[in-house]
Amino acid sequence: MNQQVNCSATCSQRQGNLIVLSGPSGVGKGTVVAQLLEQTPHLLRSISVTTRQKRNSELDCIDYFFLTKEQFSQSRASGELLEWAEYAGAFYGTPRSFVRQQQQDGNDVLLVIEVAGARQIAQLAPEAVLIFLSPPSFEALESRLAGRATEQPEQVASRLVKAKEEISQKELFAYEVVNDIVEIAVNNLQHIIYSERLKIRQPIR
Amino acid sequence: MNQQVNCSATCSQRQGNLIVLSGPSGVGKGTVVAQLLEQTPHLLRSISVTTRQKRNSELDCIDYFFLTKEQFSQSRASGELLEWAEYAGAFYGTPRSFVRQQQQDGNDVLLVIEVAGARQIAQLAPEAVLIFLSPPSFEALESRLAGRATEQPEQVASRLVKAKEEISQKELFAYEVVNDIVEIAVNNLQHIIYSERLKIRQPIR
Repeated sequence: MNQQVNCSATCSQRQGNLIVLSGPSGVGKGTVVAQLLEQTPHLLRSISVTTRQKRNSELDCIDYFFLTKEQFSQSRASGELLEWAEYAGAFYGTPRSFVRQQQQDGNDVLLVIEVAGARQIAQLAPEAVLIFLSPPSFEALESRLAGRATEQPEQVASRLVKAKEEISQKELFAYEVVNDIVEIAVNNLQHIIYSERLKIRQPIR
Repeated sequence: MNQQVNCSATCSQRQGNLIVLSGPSGVGKGTVVAQLLEQTPHLLRSISVTTRQKRNSELDCIDYFFLTKEQFSQSRASGELLEWAEYAGAFYGTPRSFVRQQQQDGNDVLLVIEVAGARQIAQLAPEAVLIFLSPPSFEALESRLAGRATEQPEQVASRLVKAKEEISQKELFAYEVVNDIVEIAVNNLQHIIYSERLKIRQPIR
């Protein structure tokens, strides 16, 4: 048996996994992701680029890289985006070099992206681990979105239409985690992340 | 969203998974499996049939169903065995009806079987979750086997030859868990079992 055989799940030589988390607006991705990152060693969040307006609570270079539409187009044209999507009038994308570097350093990289983006990742990086975060019910989602102070009623309506469409596409994903109780959702996400570290990667099968 | 969408990982309507654990003789399957079963809700061990001689510590109908060679042949001929294998001069098999009934009741069923049996399961039940339990090193395996009071030196030698062959086939498995510290191995097995409960099963993809 060579060294590779003995390499444990926390082995530093291991190349990290690409973990993709999607789910409808209002499902609670923010809260779940914050706890998950805090409690999971060797898991880093990818920082997305976006052209949407910064919310007051958000920080540039931490929550997103906020770009102008021109800057975004340049990144996209140069092949720097691992995926990109337009959502509610704004563009979002994942910077390829950041992700790959983190994986080479042995960290799992968490992408929190829209379903359209997850679809691109599934094609470009079939080894990615796709997870869908579901609301306990559509009504729960509706009331969470309506309760957001930052959203106008027409934005809520538009996000609900989008949410229905996204939920109908969840078969694209490998796993589903229901976000009813946050701690359980976080725990379930950790089970997935840890078990994926134990996968035997088969170059040919 | 229908009820199925909201079904949590512990939902009683869920059909259980078939979890297959293999690994070389002496890797510590017995200890790991005992702790795993004690600590994991909705996980039951399948009881194998075997023609090998009962050890003093073993109980019929609990550790194995001990059969004569004739009884074993009848079971095999009637299609009652989900897999079977000959190992060190004895026959082992998994009774199909026991496994399927437990799955229908919403329990995961754990099969602890030889690699040859795992290969049959992979073909007959491709949805099965195949896990390989590895020793931290080949030397560790050797000393564990040599320390077994129940084994003759020629049996140890024969098991070591078999072990090398089995380790070379671990690419058959989806996951690898190294049994260095038992508690960590059990914990890793739980991550796999829980995350597999969160899989979105795709009838067509």
